[in-house]
Amino acid sequence: MVGRHETRMQAVNDTTASFPTSKRNRLKRRHDRGSYDHEAVFAVLDAGLLCHVAYTFDGQPYCTPTIHWREDGMLYWHGSSASRMLRQLRGGTPACLTVSHLDGLVLARSGFNHSANYRSAMCFGMARIIDEPEEKLKALAGVVDRFYPGRTQTLRAISAQEAKATTVIGMRIEEASAKVRAKGVADDEEDYGHPVWAGVIPVRMVVGAAEPCPRLLPGIVQPENLAGYAEGARLDQALTQAQLAYEGGQ
Amino acid sequence: MVGRHETRMQAVNDTTASFPTSKRNRLKRRHDRGSYDHEAVFAVLDAGLLCHVAYTFDGQPYCTPTIHWREDGMLYWHGSSASRMLRQLRGGTPACLTVSHLDGLVLARSGFNHSANYRSAMCFGMARIIDEPEEKLKALAGVVDRFYPGRTQTLRAISAQEAKATTVIGMRIEEASAKVRAKGVADDEEDYGHPVWAGVIPVRMVVGAAEPCPRLLPGIVQPENLAGYAEGARLDQALTQAQLAYEGGQ
Repeated sequence: MVGRHETRMQAVNDTTASFPTSKRNRLKRRHDRGSYDHEAVFAVLDAGLLCHVAYTFDGQPYCTPTIHWREDGMLYWHGSSASRMLRQLRGGTPACLTVSHLDGLVLARSGFNHSANYRSAMCFGMARIIDEPEEKLKALAGVVDRFYPGRTQTLRAISAQEAKATTVIGMRIEEASAKVRAKGVADDEEDYGHPVWAGVIPVRMVVGAAEPCPRLLPGIVQPENLAGYAEGARLDQALTQAQLAYEGGQ
Repeated sequence: MVGRHETRMQAVNDTTASFPTSKRNRLKRRHDRGSYDHEAVFAVLDAGLLCHVAYTFDGQPYCTPTIHWREDGMLYWHGSSASRMLRQLRGGTPACLTVSHLDGLVLARSGFNHSANYRSAMCFGMARIIDEPEEKLKALAGVVDRFYPGRTQTLRAISAQEAKATTVIGMRIEEASAKVRAKGVADDEEDYGHPVWAGVIPVRMVVGAAEPCPRLLPGIVQPENLAGYAEGARLDQALTQAQLAYEGGQ
């Protein structure tokens, strides 16, 4: 595992395992919760499928939810070629892609010390449309195989029309930070005598029972490579395992 | 319920139950998944605690995860008064607050038709620091009571220093849209004969067993108003119920 991670980090930056800091990503508060390490940032990114991307068009910020995937220090997401905003990305635009996991509600004895347990990563860079055909086709396979390792080769092949209708956006992570709160109630010392219930209510994203398409051909069963998404599994763990399998299989 | 919703909507806009549309929030694709109705937008917002806010500072977009809450057509979130970015909000800045719920992974017979089930709402407006003392104190109670109805009156009261150290940001929703995908696999007709497993893997945010603070006073048990967050409950449903209880208790 260590070797794997080291290899991945060297692909991002040969001399350090941390992202550089600037006023853009430097944590101004709660330093105890933060990290610039590739490993910490990638752990948050790889445990998620849903991300939010901030772009600015004509002075208006947009916070767009989408699906992201990662290849070393590159982030990818995609959309329809008909999308008004995506067309404006051709020349590249500054963006910020954030992945957050809510892990718990923290109920303290004062309103001020109420909090949440979470893991989040903010990544900064220039978002660009991926036009180069080989990189684009690799990315269009990646969006499937990163979540369901090996699945692309079992599917009907992508058509030229589908590839054309899909815009792939890529962003090299220039700067990033991860932030984690993972602990119990932290009340002011003088408040512990206050007679109110306090504690953590944990939450987690859980996989439910798969709902097979009613039009499955006879004899078709769920393949082995979806075993991580069994009923009751934690989604963040299944996604992390899928990323490792994807990287191992490339 | 209908009466309640109507009352809430009239507080936003006396003449219509929908948000106005402009090029900012108009859906350019997947119209079948979208809505501008207050009810649809509020349903997504109220089912969530975690949101992402996009702001732009010095030409750089930031996508910041935070906790939001709603009072009629106003959204609130907060942060430390020491935060670099929040200080720049004093004069107001365009923002976009988005809440998204991932509901399922959709595995199709072609890569192109892979998708996700989700509910999301994007809200546009001017984010401003709430300085007016009465509105600020009401908001600081709201951030607790909206999630845990009636809890503020059981807590140690907020101090002047704590109120000062907290920046409350408010944004009236000027425009908004909700987008929902909630269905099974939608393959191209000619692909249903392709011999691969296809279906939906549902996911949901679930509440775990509460972890009481080890320093609880003897005899203190979890109060009634946290019953919605019982182990195994769906977080989106618990949050929606809490919002209704909060509005009913005001």
